[in-house]
Amino acid sequence: MPEKDAYTVEPWCVREPKLRLDVLADTETVFALSNGCLGLRGTLDEGEPVAQRGSYLAGFHELRTFEYPETAAGDPEATQTLVNTIDGTFVRLLVDGHPFDVRSGELLDHERVLDLRAGTLRRRARWRTPDDRVVEIESERLVSFAHRSGAAIRYSVRAVDAPVEVVLQSGLVANAQLPDLPSVPSPDDLLKHPLVGRDHRASGTRLTLVHRARRSGLLVGAAADHELDAPQDFEVHAESEEDAARFTVTGRLETGAAITLVKYLGYAWSGDRSLSAVRDEVAAAVTAVRHTGWDELLAAQRRTLDEFWESADVEIDGDDELQQAVRFALWHLLQATLRAEGRAIAGKALTGTGYEGHAFWDTETFVLQVMTAVRPEVTRHALGWRHAILDKARARARQLDLQGAAFPWRTIAGEECSGYWPAGTIAFHVNADIADAVIRYVDSTDDEEFARTTGLDLLVETARLWMSLGHHGRDGAFHIYGVTGPDEYSALSDDNVYTNLMAQRNLRGAANWAQKHRDSAEALDVGDDEIASWLDAADAMFVPYDEDLGVHPQAAGFTDQPRWDFAGTPENHYPLHSHYPYFQLYRKQVVKQADLVLAMFLRGDAFTDEEKARNMDYYEQLTVRDSSLSASNQAVLAAEVGYLDLAHDYVAESALADLRDLEHSTADGLHLAALAGTWIAIVAGFGGLRQVDAVLHFRPALPSRLQRLCFRMCFRGRLLRVRVEAGTATYEVLRGEPLVVLHEGNEVELTAGVPVERPLTPREERTPPRQPETRALGRRARPPEAA
Amino acid sequence: MPEKDAYTVEPWCVREPKLRLDVLADTETVFALSNGCLGLRGTLDEGEPVAQRGSYLAGFHELRTFEYPETAAGDPEATQTLVNTIDGTFVRLLVDGHPFDVRSGELLDHERVLDLRAGTLRRRARWRTPDDRVVEIESERLVSFAHRSGAAIRYSVRAVDAPVEVVLQSGLVANAQLPDLPSVPSPDDLLKHPLVGRDHRASGTRLTLVHRARRSGLLVGAAADHELDAPQDFEVHAESEEDAARFTVTGRLETGAAITLVKYLGYAWSGDRSLSAVRDEVAAAVTAVRHTGWDELLAAQRRTLDEFWESADVEIDGDDELQQAVRFALWHLLQATLRAEGRAIAGKALTGTGYEGHAFWDTETFVLQVMTAVRPEVTRHALGWRHAILDKARARARQLDLQGAAFPWRTIAGEECSGYWPAGTIAFHVNADIADAVIRYVDSTDDEEFARTTGLDLLVETARLWMSLGHHGRDGAFHIYGVTGPDEYSALSDDNVYTNLMAQRNLRGAANWAQKHRDSAEALDVGDDEIASWLDAADAMFVPYDEDLGVHPQAAGFTDQPRWDFAGTPENHYPLHSHYPYFQLYRKQVVKQADLVLAMFLRGDAFTDEEKARNMDYYEQLTVRDSSLSASNQAVLAAEVGYLDLAHDYVAESALADLRDLEHSTADGLHLAALAGTWIAIVAGFGGLRQVDAVLHFRPALPSRLQRLCFRMCFRGRLLRVRVEAGTATYEVLRGEPLVVLHEGNEVELTAGVPVERPLTPREERTPPRQPETRALGRRARPPEAA
Repeated sequence: MPEKDAYTVEPWCVREPKLRLDVLADTETVFALSNGCLGLRGTLDEGEPVAQRGSYLAGFHELRTFEYPETAAGDPEATQTLVNTIDGTFVRLLVDGHPFDVRSGELLDHERVLDLRAGTLRRRARWRTPDDRVVEIESERLVSFAHRSGAAIRYSVRAVDAPVEVVLQSGLVANAQLPDLPSVPSPDDLLKHPLVGRDHRASGTRLTLVHRARRSGLLVGAAADHELDAPQDFEVHAESEEDAARFTVTGRLETGAAITLVKYLGYAWSGDRSLSAVRDEVAAAVTAVRHTGWDELLAAQRRTLDEFWESADVEIDGDDELQQAVRFALWHLLQATLRAEGRAIAGKALTGTGYEGHAFWDTETFVLQVMTAVRPEVTRHALGWRHAILDKARARARQLDLQGAAFPWRTIAGEECSGYWPAGTIAFHVNADIADAVIRYVDSTDDEEFARTTGLDLLVETARLWMSLGHHGRDGAFHIYGVTGPDEYSALSDDNVYTNLMAQRNLRGAANWAQKHRDSAEALDVGDDEIASWLDAADAMFVPYDEDLGVHPQAAGFTDQPRWDFAGTPENHYPLHSHYPYFQLYRKQVVKQADLVLAMFLRGDAFTDEEKARNMDYYEQLTVRDSSLSASNQAVLAAEVGYLDLAHDYVAESALADLRDLEHSTADGLHLAALAGTWIAIVAGFGGLRQVDAVLHFRPALPSRLQRLCFRMCFRGRLLRVRVEAGTATYEVLRGEPLVVLHEGNEVELTAGVPVERPLTPREERTPPRQPETRALGRRARPPEAA
Repeated sequence: MPEKDAYTVEPWCVREPKLRLDVLADTETVFALSNGCLGLRGTLDEGEPVAQRGSYLAGFHELRTFEYPETAAGDPEATQTLVNTIDGTFVRLLVDGHPFDVRSGELLDHERVLDLRAGTLRRRARWRTPDDRVVEIESERLVSFAHRSGAAIRYSVRAVDAPVEVVLQSGLVANAQLPDLPSVPSPDDLLKHPLVGRDHRASGTRLTLVHRARRSGLLVGAAADHELDAPQDFEVHAESEEDAARFTVTGRLETGAAITLVKYLGYAWSGDRSLSAVRDEVAAAVTAVRHTGWDELLAAQRRTLDEFWESADVEIDGDDELQQAVRFALWHLLQATLRAEGRAIAGKALTGTGYEGHAFWDTETFVLQVMTAVRPEVTRHALGWRHAILDKARARARQLDLQGAAFPWRTIAGEECSGYWPAGTIAFHVNADIADAVIRYVDSTDDEEFARTTGLDLLVETARLWMSLGHHGRDGAFHIYGVTGPDEYSALSDDNVYTNLMAQRNLRGAANWAQKHRDSAEALDVGDDEIASWLDAADAMFVPYDEDLGVHPQAAGFTDQPRWDFAGTPENHYPLHSHYPYFQLYRKQVVKQADLVLAMFLRGDAFTDEEKARNMDYYEQLTVRDSSLSASNQAVLAAEVGYLDLAHDYVAESALADLRDLEHSTADGLHLAALAGTWIAIVAGFGGLRQVDAVLHFRPALPSRLQRLCFRMCFRGRLLRVRVEAGTATYEVLRGEPLVVLHEGNEVELTAGVPVERPLTPREERTPPRQPETRALGRRARPPEAA
């Protein structure tokens, strides 16, 4: 889609060289700044034009009551929905009485740069006013990595060719007018004005607003403080009312002179503290940010990023677009997770209200898979959030007549928020995905304290869920009936292979850890009989197989279903669920997103190489990739079975999901799982990384168009670098104790500072099967050659 | 439930000897009068106290927009909902200024009698006013069988012990205040006042109101006219306003004197005619009713009923309660269907707003099965309604990416009104049920004109639906995947036996009729290839069978599911769907209502006797009867496999559903299918009737507590009577040509007026299996011995 090519291709930044109002909503998402606690969409400083305003705080939500045509037991009564809180990004400018608006006067230059090493969004504009005065505007915005509730904006104006009268209005706004949200299905007028004013103040350089969400009752406060660098005769004024507070600076700029305003922002919210406590917390937050000061805030951003890139950077030679995209992906992963501390990490992070700001299984299976490798403490915090909502998950299990814990399919605060149970409540695999993340984290970090406490609690309660969901059948095998796997074009299936294999891992993990941490297990009432029952179930876990076709059905009976009529499906009928009723999708062979293929990646040990190859060929022909979660895992398996160039195409599809708006929904927020999938696809696909218990296995191979791949990762206290070039792979422990890894199945002993090179066994590149009609790859805007 | 025993047990009436305000809602339903076009709930004349007012017109509905937590393709946007139209039942009485209200003064006597031969509801009361005057009130109410939009009320008051001042107010009321409706899930304030006044008139003795439903736009009008028999000095006055019109009679009654008011009612509604046309139609209706006059209206009721009972009566010796109940059932079946002419017959008839007044498959499979036998022209009209909505069913099929016609799961006017597709849209068996009713009607009547036109259209379009729903699998068999059968505790099943067998009948019927009516078939573009494809699919129809257990799974894989934990389910957790989420029900062996058992009745030819016995025993242990549609079919099969006393208990459960409020929802309207099922269970169960093509097979047998059963039915122009007594069955053609029937498999030639007696082969009474814990039979209030 060339029309969406808003950015230049550069290794360390995302630059919009010219303002593109036609893709304003996309750029607001791409340029969103966040630290995982506070998120600001990349809106223009002056507030308008705007597609969707958004200042979000992780966990701060409003409620929306569900209406069901027919009510049923177990259906959630309400959903939590992420709402725009108090917006502090506004800095309005008037020049000789003309409000600066990019649609008025003449915009001589306009550039925005997201700097992936500086950790800021910079903007530079030259604007000719309607009465022909030229001013130069520069702003730089950051959401602090150091202060979890803090942000800052540096805004300056220079008179270029004549003296001008300048007014700067820096504000806080609550209930700012929002467009109708495509992500919220039913109209709900209350959500357009979710906040009720509780306090407003303006004094000196400081502004404060405190509001309360109407139905959830949560309190939220924001404060702004200001530093001014201006000619001496500038006047300032502060004022406030219920939904707005304003700090105004007025004066005259001589030709060539400039005025600079630094705006510091602090936030707080709470569901149980009082108005005055929240007000105090906001004041503390903004005071701390201002005390740190602009320069040190900037320096701290860079320090955090230097450290991050040291452990996380991925270098790619041969595809500049992918080089940029993978760093963009890692940048947003860091932003989404760094300070989430005890809050959910949403599928669209804090960059938009798509999916109502809910967190899904994507967090554990995609995002945390990456973060465990590049910044493992983030995973510890994220799993700590799951632990914090464990009691809600236990209560949900009871409500569903199940044992253990049933984690929500989608949520902000822990309660189930899915209103469509066939693709929500019964997608129980989320519980095994959490368990998988727990196990991977501990295998990767050796964090035994976590394992004994948080980790064991999570494994035990999810294992109990599987025991109550499954049963030993007449055949003696353990079956799990009536669930939905990752593929949302199937539902209410029996013995979904992915679910069963992940449940098996969950059960075995729980049994192993319970045996290892006896005291903790006893505190959870885990006895020998229960442990034995988990191992029995795991050992007897049923995995359906179609002997006739020689492939695994995604779930029992899947391969007996009639095949979707791909040839008869018009291209504009994708995504299929927008055009065909669910029952038609459910009863036919058509796959929205990798399911059996994902099982072959995460539980590769359960399949032979031949099975993987046959399964991959089979499912390639059925998978329509109507979900952004699909391409990355297809890439991993494509690489494994020998379709390296196809894998490269899949990586690109995942990587460019948001930079090229391939899903047509970047406006609503990032596709965080697709971004995480980019790293996974590169590292597990081309790097051939598989982690088996506490051992890293590599089987690298590059597609024909890449010359070099180099990635870094943390593992059990080491920092590791892997370089893959034509014919060789080079492993090096950059920091930490010696480590043994496997290269193509053979042990390689690594000690710090000593790179070890190994030859790559050449792979036979096979001809991949065709994707369904009209769903073939090749949606990339520019081939990498032309980049 | 003795507390619900409101009625005496009498063979030809339902008498409430004493007013029971605690079951007022139930009595309003039981005493509802209707002719299938107009229905009036059995509310007290004076309007209060009241549980639920209801004056309903078949087809007159309001719209209610569905809200979905998550929207999906193919989901209906709105539902049609039956609303109370203009209420003409009000006749208020004031005695010496005291409004007659059964809760004030003293009610000395109060009796209501539903007379099943007179076709009226009579009421008699003696009331002592708060100032100690006694008056006697008599009223009689009818909904005319002769005038489809007409009703009449005769109301008289007598001064018993002193002269009194009397005021009678006879009214029409629109938007009468209604209680919150439990049957409508989401609050919708507009539905509380659904009508907008368009015209109101009062002149002489006549009152008229015309209103328009807000969202559906349908116009409805009602008119009342009055005849007065009163002492000469009584004054009358008529007045009207937007939502009410009133005819007032005032004067003095000397001791022993009486005043009698006859109120005639006429109705009309339309979706396409103008206000003035509707006003004229209402005037014509009330004029015609008044012209007929009270005495002739009464006589016409009795003539219709004499004729009806001649062809429909069922006599039972040995169970007085059942005797009353089966006549009550037949009475309401007649009321529900007689003048429905071109309108849907709802699951609760016109007796309440339960299920929003929707018609379901119950109509064809239960109600029309009876009416075809006792009043076949009703079936012709009812199937004519299906034909009238055929274009809507075709459009629905297109919307679902299917061929042919997809009739709605629930509807008033033809559009799909189910908001929960797993137990709505995909319960496609409704289409085969319609086809089955078509075939049965033609086999029973030899109505070849109907077969060639309406019937063929319905069979062809439903056959096309099955061809697009099913597919020939790798095994060559024809499979139908992803549907829901009659049992609503399973959903989205593959190869539901009931559905497959009924689809098979549908396909074969379509093929046979298309071959027989070549010209008509060609007009529908049916060629030889299409006919051949139907026969191929029917011949290859897959019927799953569990070889290990020796039973038919209700659908593929059903018998592999874990069994519901009946022992662990508290009695107050029934109905299960109110306490457990659907996914739990769907993935376990638990049956809400006869499904495989119903297949064994309607497609008995597809099962051996041994299979029936084994299947019956298997499903008895799983069937919880959380639907009123279940007991009757369990009764039929119980009788067939030798559980005659169990069958008797099931018959009673079906028969007493409303007279004893066994389902706790009679307040919302009758359970018409349970009432129809009573006849079916008696005639097919104890009479052993099976119709095979155009031949009647009988295999009678009585349970131990019944001494005699005698039933009548119409068949291909004959009127037939079957009498079953200890050891013998006696068959007689009462009217019409000779007929050959089968008694226990042997031909019996019958000629009019000559009873033929045959001995009954004694049956071995086997010991039936247990029903699930707490769901054992025996819920009848009084054992028949004590009746």
